[in-house]
Amino acid sequence: MPLLAEIKEILKLEKLDGYFLPRNNMFLGEDIHPAENKILKLTGFSGSAGTLLIKTQGRSILFVDGRYALQAPLETDSQEIEVVCTAQTPMLKWLQENLPQKFRLGYNPQCLSIKDVEQFQQKLPDIQWVATAEKVEPSMPLIKGRIFEHNIEFSGISREEKIGAVLDFLAPTDAAGWLFCAADSVSWLLNLRAKCLPDTPIIRGYVLIERNGNTTLFGGNLDFGNKEYPLSTYPLEALENVLKKFKKQSLYIDEYKTPQLINTLFAKYKIEALHHKDIAETAKAIKNRIELEGIRRAHIRDGVAVVNFLYWLENNGLGKTEMEIVAELHNFRQKQEHYFSESFETIAAFGSNGAIVHYQPSTKSNKALQNGSLLLLDSGAQYYDGTTDITRTLAIGEPTEEMKQNYTTVLKGHINISRAVFPQGTSGQSLDALARLPLWKQGLNYAHGTGHGVGCFLNVHEGPQGISTSYSPYPLSVGMITSIEPGYYKEGCYGIRIENLVEIVESKQKGMLCFSPLTLVPYDRKLINKAQLTPAEISWINDYHARVFAALSPKIIGATKDWLKKACAKL
Amino acid sequence: MPLLAEIKEILKLEKLDGYFLPRNNMFLGEDIHPAENKILKLTGFSGSAGTLLIKTQGRSILFVDGRYALQAPLETDSQEIEVVCTAQTPMLKWLQENLPQKFRLGYNPQCLSIKDVEQFQQKLPDIQWVATAEKVEPSMPLIKGRIFEHNIEFSGISREEKIGAVLDFLAPTDAAGWLFCAADSVSWLLNLRAKCLPDTPIIRGYVLIERNGNTTLFGGNLDFGNKEYPLSTYPLEALENVLKKFKKQSLYIDEYKTPQLINTLFAKYKIEALHHKDIAETAKAIKNRIELEGIRRAHIRDGVAVVNFLYWLENNGLGKTEMEIVAELHNFRQKQEHYFSESFETIAAFGSNGAIVHYQPSTKSNKALQNGSLLLLDSGAQYYDGTTDITRTLAIGEPTEEMKQNYTTVLKGHINISRAVFPQGTSGQSLDALARLPLWKQGLNYAHGTGHGVGCFLNVHEGPQGISTSYSPYPLSVGMITSIEPGYYKEGCYGIRIENLVEIVESKQKGMLCFSPLTLVPYDRKLINKAQLTPAEISWINDYHARVFAALSPKIIGATKDWLKKACAKL
Repeated sequence: MPLLAEIKEILKLEKLDGYFLPRNNMFLGEDIHPAENKILKLTGFSGSAGTLLIKTQGRSILFVDGRYALQAPLETDSQEIEVVCTAQTPMLKWLQENLPQKFRLGYNPQCLSIKDVEQFQQKLPDIQWVATAEKVEPSMPLIKGRIFEHNIEFSGISREEKIGAVLDFLAPTDAAGWLFCAADSVSWLLNLRAKCLPDTPIIRGYVLIERNGNTTLFGGNLDFGNKEYPLSTYPLEALENVLKKFKKQSLYIDEYKTPQLINTLFAKYKIEALHHKDIAETAKAIKNRIELEGIRRAHIRDGVAVVNFLYWLENNGLGKTEMEIVAELHNFRQKQEHYFSESFETIAAFGSNGAIVHYQPSTKSNKALQNGSLLLLDSGAQYYDGTTDITRTLAIGEPTEEMKQNYTTVLKGHINISRAVFPQGTSGQSLDALARLPLWKQGLNYAHGTGHGVGCFLNVHEGPQGISTSYSPYPLSVGMITSIEPGYYKEGCYGIRIENLVEIVESKQKGMLCFSPLTLVPYDRKLINKAQLTPAEISWINDYHARVFAALSPKIIGATKDWLKKACAKL
Repeated sequence: MPLLAEIKEILKLEKLDGYFLPRNNMFLGEDIHPAENKILKLTGFSGSAGTLLIKTQGRSILFVDGRYALQAPLETDSQEIEVVCTAQTPMLKWLQENLPQKFRLGYNPQCLSIKDVEQFQQKLPDIQWVATAEKVEPSMPLIKGRIFEHNIEFSGISREEKIGAVLDFLAPTDAAGWLFCAADSVSWLLNLRAKCLPDTPIIRGYVLIERNGNTTLFGGNLDFGNKEYPLSTYPLEALENVLKKFKKQSLYIDEYKTPQLINTLFAKYKIEALHHKDIAETAKAIKNRIELEGIRRAHIRDGVAVVNFLYWLENNGLGKTEMEIVAELHNFRQKQEHYFSESFETIAAFGSNGAIVHYQPSTKSNKALQNGSLLLLDSGAQYYDGTTDITRTLAIGEPTEEMKQNYTTVLKGHINISRAVFPQGTSGQSLDALARLPLWKQGLNYAHGTGHGVGCFLNVHEGPQGISTSYSPYPLSVGMITSIEPGYYKEGCYGIRIENLVEIVESKQKGMLCFSPLTLVPYDRKLINKAQLTPAEISWINDYHARVFAALSPKIIGATKDWLKKACAKL
C-alpha cells in the first residue's frame, strides 16, 4: 500500500479526521536533509517550503507559497493531492473556510512552534488539535552530522564572548537560563558548524545557557569526533531529564522558534516560560567587522567562479542540459579557496522551466539550451568566510524584444531599490514597492519576497529582517545583509530574476542608510534595452560594472579577462 | 490660582501621582470645539492632537507628534510644561521609562478607548490606572449643535439602506445589536449632519442599532429643531438606562472607537461585548458613485476659488499678513455653490512660520508677506457634496536656488507616488517610501504621514486607510480618497508641502490600481527647477496642468483666465 494510504488507515484507527504535517523537523527551519523530508516522501513535492494536510477522507491538501505554485502540481499526483497556493488563499483562511466544526486534526508537537499552535487554536477555535505523532508519521531519523569549529578568523567573535552577552542579558533578570532551539542561533552562539545537510553547515541541536555560565548542547545526532569541546553535550533525547531540575524556575525561550513540545515539558515540570525574541538571531543578523571582511572576500572569489563559468557558457553552453550547467558551475566554484559546499541546490531553469520560480532540474524536467530563450541561474556557495547567493538571467542566442523589455523592467526595479537611501529605523516592507513599481506600471508582479537576510557561513535565508509586502517590525540596520531579487515569470515561456546580495551601510547623507553591493558579476547586456533606462539608471549600471571589473580582473586571466572587460564596458 | 495648579491640589487630595488627559472628548476623534479643548485651556497648546500628563509634583508633560514639535514649546510655558515629541520618543516608551512603579495615574474612562486602556495596562503593568474624572477635570460641556439631513442627492445611499447593511451583518449572529460610538460613523449611518464644530459637520452622538431594526440616537447636546426624524432620540446621559435592558445579551462594539466607560457599563449590566472593526467606518471609506460625482464637482469649485485667490495674491499679496491671507481665501471659497464651512483652520505660514508643520496664524505670530520667501498654504472647505483639502507652497518674490531645489525634490516625491500603479491589496505603508525617496536621497525627510483618508462632507481626516511608515492592515481600494502630501521643513527658514487629494481608481493594467487627482490647482512654476525633473515627471506635470485648465477655465474669466493659462502652460 502506498505510504499516504497507510497513514490514512492509521488516522481512521486513531479516530482523527486529518493530520497536519509541516515540512520541517524539531528545528523548525526550512533546512532539512532530503532524506528527512516527509512531504517529499509522501507526495513527491521537493520544494523548500510547504505544509501537507492529510485528510482521512478524500484528497490531501498541499499548501505551497507563490514560488511553488507551478512546480507543486507537476511533482504531485492530482488524484491524491490538491495544491493550494497560499499567495492566493492564505493557509489559515483555507482552514477556516474548509474544515468542518469539531474536525479532529492530529499534529506533531515537535514540528510546530508554540506560537503556531497558539495562533491555530485562537483562529480555529472549533477545530480539535490533537498532539499525536509517533503512531502516524513515518519514522525519519536525523542524518548524522560531524561537528567542527568555525574558527575565530572567520567568526570574528569568540564563543565565550557570545555566551557572555547572553549572561549579561540574564544577569538583571530572575531567569535560570535561556533555552535556544533554533539551529542557526545555536551554531552561531557556539561557533560550531557541521557537515550533515548538503548546503547548510548548521549544527542541529538546542543549547541551554544557565545564568551561572553552564552551557549544555543537546545535539540532534551530532558526531563530535575525538575533539573535546568546552561545554556539556547530550543527545537531544536527554533534554527532558535535564529540564526536570529547573522545576519552579523560569527559562527564556522564543515562542516563534521553540517547538510546542517544550511548552508541554515546561508545563509538566512547572517551569515558567519567559517569552522573548531570540537575542542570538538579532545579534547574528548584524555582521561584525571580521565577518563583513570575510563576506566581501568570499564574494570576490564567488564572482571569479561565476565569471569563469559565464565565459565557458558563452562558448560551450549551446546544447548543454540544465543538469550539465549545474555541474559545470559547481566545478568552477569548488576550486575557490575556503569553498565548503553550495549554499542551496542550484536553480538552472531554461525557457519555460524558468517560470517555475524555485525550479531545480531533474532527469525528468531537464532541458537542453537552445537559441532564443532565457536561462535563469540562481546559485550560491558556502565558503568558510561567507555565504553567497546570486541570480543572473542570461540570453541564450538572440533574445526577443519582449524578453529584453521585461528583463529591463525587472532590472529597473532591481536598480530602483539598490539605489535607495533611507532613514535609520526603516523596515523592509517600506522599501519593497521600490523594486516592484516598474513592474506594476507594466501590469506585472512577482509572487515572492524582494529580499531575505543571509548568514555568514550559515543559512542562506535568515531573519529577522526581510524585504517583502509582509509587515516586519525589524528595521534594516548597518551590518545586515539582504538579497535584492525582483523577478518576472511568464508561464509556459521563461523566467527572469536578478539578484544581488548587498550590505547595509551608512550613506553619505547624515542619519541615512543605503545598500552596498556584495555580489560581483555583470548583468547580461544582451538583455538590456537601453532606451527604457533613465540616465541615472545607466550610470548606476556603469558604476556597478566598473566595480565588478576592478574587483575581479586581477584574478581573471586570458580570454576570460577580455570577455569580462566587454561585459563591464560602459553601456 | 492658575487652573493647572488647582488641578494639582485636587490630585494631592485624591492621593494621585498624576492625571492622564487626552485632548479628545467621549467621541474619541480629533474634532472638538475650541471651547471644549481642555489641553488648550490648561496649557495654551492649540494643536489638533496631543496628550497631557499632569504630574502632581514637578512639570507636566505634553506629548505631541512631529507636526507640533516646534509649535508646542512656543505656545506653552516651559516652567510648567515639558514638551515630548512622540516622533522621537513614543509616548508609551516615555511612560515605561519615566513613571516610577506603583505610580497612581488618574484618567477619564469617557476619553480613552477600551483598547487604549487595555494596552496601557498591558504595557505598563506596574502603573495603577485609576478611573476618576469628575473631581479632577475642568467641566467643559459640549457645544450645542443644530442637526440637519444630509440629503440623498449628496449622500447617495439612504439611511434605511445603510442601517439595512448593519442588520444584514447582525442577522446570522446571536447579537442583540451594535453600539456605534464614533461620531463620523454615526453621522454617515444616519445621513445626519450638524453645525456645532467650526469645520466638521459631524453630529455628536452614539447610535444603537438593534437586530429588529430599532435605531436609537444618543445625542451629545444635539438640537433637533422642529423636524421629526424616524428614529428614537435620547440625550447621551440616557444611555445607561437603555443599556440595562440588554442584560445577559451581547452587543457589537469596536474597541478602538468605544470609550472605556462603555466597558464598565457592559460589565455592570452583564452585557457581552462582541469586538469587531466598525463596519460603518470601512463602508464609509469607499465612496459611492453619487458621492464621487459630488466630490469631483466640489473640487472643481474649490479649484476655481483657489485660482481666483492665487491671482489676487500675485497682485495684492505683498505686505498682507497671514491672517489677511486666510480671510481673503475664505472670501473666495464662501462664494462657491454648496459651501458650508472651512474643513479645518487654514494654515497660512510665511517664511520661518512654514517650518512649523501645522502652524495657524495668530495675532502673536502673524507675519506679513515680503519678497524672497515661501508661503505655505494648507486649506480646504466643506461643501454639501464633498470635502476638500489642498496645500500649495508659493514663492513670494524671487525664490533662492535652494528653495527651488528643495521644492522640486518634494514635488518629485509628490509625483513619484501620484504616478504609482499598484496591485489590489496594497496597503498605504507599502507606497509611503515612494513619496519620501527623492527627499531621502538628499538626506531630508518629513515627520508626518504622506496621506490620510477624507470624508464626504465629513471629517477631513478619516480612516481606516492611511499612507505612512506605520503598519496598516487596510488596503487602498477603488473608491477611497486619500491625500498625498510630502513636505520638507527647514527650521527657522521656511516650509514646503505639496498636497493633492486623489481618488483610487482601476488602472488600465488589469488587476492594478492607481491614483486619479481630485484637487485642481496648478503648482507654482516659479519654484520648479526643471533640470531636476525626468522627462516622465515633466510630462506628468504637463498632463496635470492640462487637466486643471480644462476643468477650471470655463468657470474663470478675464485676466485670471490669462493667469491660469500661463500657470498651466507646458513646462
